[in-house]
Amino acid sequence: MTQTPLRFGLIGTGRIGQVHAANIAADPQATLAWVCDPFIEGAHALSALYGGTVTTDAAEMFASGEVDAVLIASPTATHVDLLEAAIDAGVPALCEKPIDLDTARVDALLPRVQSSGVPIALGFNRRFDPAFAEARARVAAGEIGALEQLSIISRDPAAPPASYVAVSGGIFRDMTIHDLDMARFFLPDIVEVTATGSTTFDPGAREHDDFDTAVVTLRASSGALVSITNSRHSSVGYDQRLEAFGAEGSIEVANALTSLVSVSNGQSVQARPPYQNFFLERYSVAYQAELAEFIKLARGEQSTSPTFADGRAALILADAAARSAVERVSVAVTL
Amino acid sequence: MTQTPLRFGLIGTGRIGQVHAANIAADPQATLAWVCDPFIEGAHALSALYGGTVTTDAAEMFASGEVDAVLIASPTATHVDLLEAAIDAGVPALCEKPIDLDTARVDALLPRVQSSGVPIALGFNRRFDPAFAEARARVAAGEIGALEQLSIISRDPAAPPASYVAVSGGIFRDMTIHDLDMARFFLPDIVEVTATGSTTFDPGAREHDDFDTAVVTLRASSGALVSITNSRHSSVGYDQRLEAFGAEGSIEVANALTSLVSVSNGQSVQARPPYQNFFLERYSVAYQAELAEFIKLARGEQSTSPTFADGRAALILADAAARSAVERVSVAVTL
Amino acid sequence: MTQTPLRFGLIGTGRIGQVHAANIAADPQATLAWVCDPFIEGAHALSALYGGTVTTDAAEMFASGEVDAVLIASPTATHVDLLEAAIDAGVPALCEKPIDLDTARVDALLPRVQSSGVPIALGFNRRFDPAFAEARARVAAGEIGALEQLSIISRDPAAPPASYVAVSGGIFRDMTIHDLDMARFFLPDIVEVTATGSTTFDPGAREHDDFDTAVVTLRASSGALVSITNSRHSSVGYDQRLEAFGAEGSIEVANALTSLVSVSNGQSVQARPPYQNFFLERYSVAYQAELAEFIKLARGEQSTSPTFADGRAALILADAAARSAVERVSVAVTL
Amino acid sequence: MTQTPLRFGLIGTGRIGQVHAANIAADPQATLAWVCDPFIEGAHALSALYGGTVTTDAAEMFASGEVDAVLIASPTATHVDLLEAAIDAGVPALCEKPIDLDTARVDALLPRVQSSGVPIALGFNRRFDPAFAEARARVAAGEIGALEQLSIISRDPAAPPASYVAVSGGIFRDMTIHDLDMARFFLPDIVEVTATGSTTFDPGAREHDDFDTAVVTLRASSGALVSITNSRHSSVGYDQRLEAFGAEGSIEVANALTSLVSVSNGQSVQARPPYQNFFLERYSVAYQAELAEFIKLARGEQSTSPTFADGRAALILADAAARSAVERVSVAVTL
Repeated sequence: MTQTPLRFGLIGTGRIGQVHAANIAADPQATLAWVCDPFIEGAHALSALYGGTVTTDAAEMFASGEVDAVLIASPTATHVDLLEAAIDAGVPALCEKPIDLDTARVDALLPRVQSSGVPIALGFNRRFDPAFAEARARVAAGEIGALEQLSIISRDPAAPPASYVAVSGGIFRDMTIHDLDMARFFLPDIVEVTATGSTTFDPGAREHDDFDTAVVTLRASSGALVSITNSRHSSVGYDQRLEAFGAEGSIEVANALTSLVSVSNGQSVQARPPYQNFFLERYSVAYQAELAEFIKLARGEQSTSPTFADGRAALILADAAARSAVERVSVAVTL
Repeated sequence: MTQTPLRFGLIGTGRIGQVHAANIAADPQATLAWVCDPFIEGAHALSALYGGTVTTDAAEMFASGEVDAVLIASPTATHVDLLEAAIDAGVPALCEKPIDLDTARVDALLPRVQSSGVPIALGFNRRFDPAFAEARARVAAGEIGALEQLSIISRDPAAPPASYVAVSGGIFRDMTIHDLDMARFFLPDIVEVTATGSTTFDPGAREHDDFDTAVVTLRASSGALVSITNSRHSSVGYDQRLEAFGAEGSIEVANALTSLVSVSNGQSVQARPPYQNFFLERYSVAYQAELAEFIKLARGEQSTSPTFADGRAALILADAAARSAVERVSVAVTL
Repeated sequence: MTQTPLRFGLIGTGRIGQVHAANIAADPQATLAWVCDPFIEGAHALSALYGGTVTTDAAEMFASGEVDAVLIASPTATHVDLLEAAIDAGVPALCEKPIDLDTARVDALLPRVQSSGVPIALGFNRRFDPAFAEARARVAAGEIGALEQLSIISRDPAAPPASYVAVSGGIFRDMTIHDLDMARFFLPDIVEVTATGSTTFDPGAREHDDFDTAVVTLRASSGALVSITNSRHSSVGYDQRLEAFGAEGSIEVANALTSLVSVSNGQSVQARPPYQNFFLERYSVAYQAELAEFIKLARGEQSTSPTFADGRAALILADAAARSAVERVSVAVTL
Repeated sequence: MTQTPLRFGLIGTGRIGQVHAANIAADPQATLAWVCDPFIEGAHALSALYGGTVTTDAAEMFASGEVDAVLIASPTATHVDLLEAAIDAGVPALCEKPIDLDTARVDALLPRVQSSGVPIALGFNRRFDPAFAEARARVAAGEIGALEQLSIISRDPAAPPASYVAVSGGIFRDMTIHDLDMARFFLPDIVEVTATGSTTFDPGAREHDDFDTAVVTLRASSGALVSITNSRHSSVGYDQRLEAFGAEGSIEVANALTSLVSVSNGQSVQARPPYQNFFLERYSVAYQAELAEFIKLARGEQSTSPTFADGRAALILADAAARSAVERVSVAVTL
């Protein structure tokens, strides 16, 4: 059943905006209609590749009436205002995480999101990774019985620059937030957060009172425990693993190898090339699936896109983790 | 450095022709200019997807002067004539394997290929698989010392229909030929072929005096031995493995898993989903790389495309295997 | 260099006492001289297999002057008194963990242990597992750079009977204590403990206010973080894994497979038989090595046996974990 | 049910004789009663460790009436005479492979073996390896459907000295014979042998007209094909693998790792320490099980010990392989 492609407005043309632009252009259900960035060269570059009218001003784009959906990939501080503009314009939005670093601003927006009925999705791309989605589906199907423990390992290849750390909101809101949402993908109802952070190698983290290393424990209302292990660097490549442990078995998601080749010799055997470099490689398929699912949402079809409420929940957990790590107490949460 | 895309004429619109059409359309260095098939509906279908003028007659296409290169994906029996037509027209050709089932016809064409200077490449796609290419490069770089043994396992998911077996030329010319070329990818100078065939499950093979199961041993001039293990079916999915064993180590190419997920329970642990279904999945990247390399060849640039001589060599080895399996003797060959 | 075998007195003939008896009998450096258990049938059974004078009364054994070393494998509540008796008799002792459930009793004994000079070793058998010992040696050799994170997964095959839970001292003192010592094997100087417990499946744990599921985070003085994941049951068999993550790489210890066989079919591939059942299988070699190392200690030779101080440290950490899990705060410790 | 231990006479005190002596001493069902070797120092050394009367003359041992069974681990050329002596004395024998290098001598002995009723077992230890035995049992149980292909990889760690090669009977009778028997463990009725040999690295093999590298293909009466890949050296350690491929799945036996540890870093991931060194490590459990099974045979109980006929069959296959490799023809055999 062919449908008219959705006309997308893309806001933000940085690394992640470029990924979305390419996926919009490649998806037969979508076209890139507008590209918006105060840094106009970025907008021009993407428009040259994939088409679309260029502007520095999102308001102009919304006013044009030429966008059926927007993809918000601009800096975090702009998200709330842009979401509000999208709601005003009645345009469905897919917004990168986090919604904002300030939960109060998110809470203030919540009633409008709920009353407007404009579809809002959050960019928790990992839910669309085929491996994590398969693992979750098999757990949901009862393949390992009751889920008792969930272990998530998530390590970035290298620490970001100190300038990024300064405005990131801290490791929990910036990096762990993905893992907090992954935890909720399996166990939505988290009731307690206990976090421990450490700064062992990154001068940027030290300078800005942040952590480069963290362990977070979550308790679900079912009693299941989640353990998240984070590091801002990883010499073996992007480290993205998960183990769901149930009463009757366990399901693991391994790191993606970059080659089918292994080498054996007198020093070691079965050695494989290092893992993928970072999220652009690891989650390329996930970004495509995320977009496809959002298109369904924007069209009013049944969709599994993470919601504004999911984005808010992850932020509440990140806030609780940040508080727990500093105050050395477990923090009860209500999502 | 942008170049004008190469205008391709595609001959043959069956399963493999469709793969090539999609890759031509997706490659910025190529466009699909003509689509040729006596079964005109096939040509129309591909033209509708990727463009190109449609014809039932390859001669019309060659006469048009509108093709810079041809991709020959028609039935084997037509290859020699089409290659001749391409040479006459001075149009570079990428021809699917085998060149022909009759070595005499291939030998007859050889002088024209050599004297014409028209670039001819053979479709031994597996050479372009990233894993096999990596394995070969690492062997060539001396990582495992002198190559002493090469073990190739190659099993198709399911036996072809009896009607296909009837005209296939037999398992060695139809299926093993890929593995014979893979052997030559590592050890070009094969001097002896010893083959054993058996018919254990396939009524089609039995009906047409063919084998469904085979083991082939090759001797290289260096003294290295190659072992090829074939089956026309495989319940675990497409089985494509290789082990290069050298004086100082070994390099293995494993089957491609379809998921990063494994499951463990009280019955078994670390169980993974089955392997990929067949060559379209396993070698999708290889077909793209094969095309890219052929485009270089067609443009007169340095290229690693397998040559007409490689196609002839594989056929000689397949003939020798067929004879060895029937006569129960080792067959010396000169390539 | 042959030495007169050490004459061992074994106290306690339960499951673990039987392991030690067999190892003493098999070690050419040791003989089983006395077997002591108030349950005299147990003592007779072991004596029948491996020799040794039988008694219900450890005092008689110490008085005999016929033991060069004792192995204390009796119930936890008896350990402190028996260690005191060993010190009084000047007989080196290898004592099963924990020293006692009451840190005050352990602290009270400490000065006597220190002043007496009688060698006391604690039965932290996992330090002698070849895999964990190799991992630790390679970390210590700098193979992965600075150790930043240590992840320990430890799950028993099945929950113990409620009667055992009742007297066990709780999961942290009974089960986690092994993992706490393993953490100290890599990172001796732990400064903070944060624990989370849950009761998800075991009625015995529920009945006795204990946990069946736990996650413990430790902070080392270096800033390195340790994550321990425990469960009282595991459908895949005894689950004993470790990952040391360093600035330049990581080292993993996998579960021991029970077979080299894997099976692949249309449903799943590479499925292996389940892991070993429990500690008697997993650590059989470790118990032998533990004994051998203790024999060196008893003879005044250089030895890596865990000390009384190690036993005390693990207990302090277990106490802190128990308190943390109940009070929902991180607990600072000084070892 | 306790039985009087079987009194063993051991003939031959070389490397493999020493293994058997230790296993006899450790098996509660056996004692080492006599140790026989013309090299009397070897006999004295084993007797000192495990007991037993020492002699240079097997006849003296047989005459003593003090042996219930003999274990023949002397040089191959002595086997037939010693088996004859055992039959004369009515003493069950476990004889190392091969029975003899000369099939005519084996055939000549056959009627006596058959008519005497004295139990004779052949030392094909690999049948008792838990992994190979499990694989075979699962194939026999129909787990992978009809067995269609069997791939055996068998590589020794290092080539033997030239002096050994000189008297070994050649690679097929000396080394491949184990794999030929393993093939028959799965597919007893082999009807055709095709072998290819090469000499690529070993001066000893070259000097004595032997091969250091070989590939053997066997055809079973069922139509199943067996592929054996041999090398006299292997830089990764003793390489002993098998894959049984059936209509409904496949079963693999992997190499035994020497450690549970793997290391990952920026150069490679999941690297494991090299495989076991050689057969003494790989098959230590198999030798014990082989002995236990022979003890049953000697006692007239049901036993799965390989028979004299199995030894003869392996020799016939080895002879056929040797002829095939030289004459470059497939050789039909009747076992």
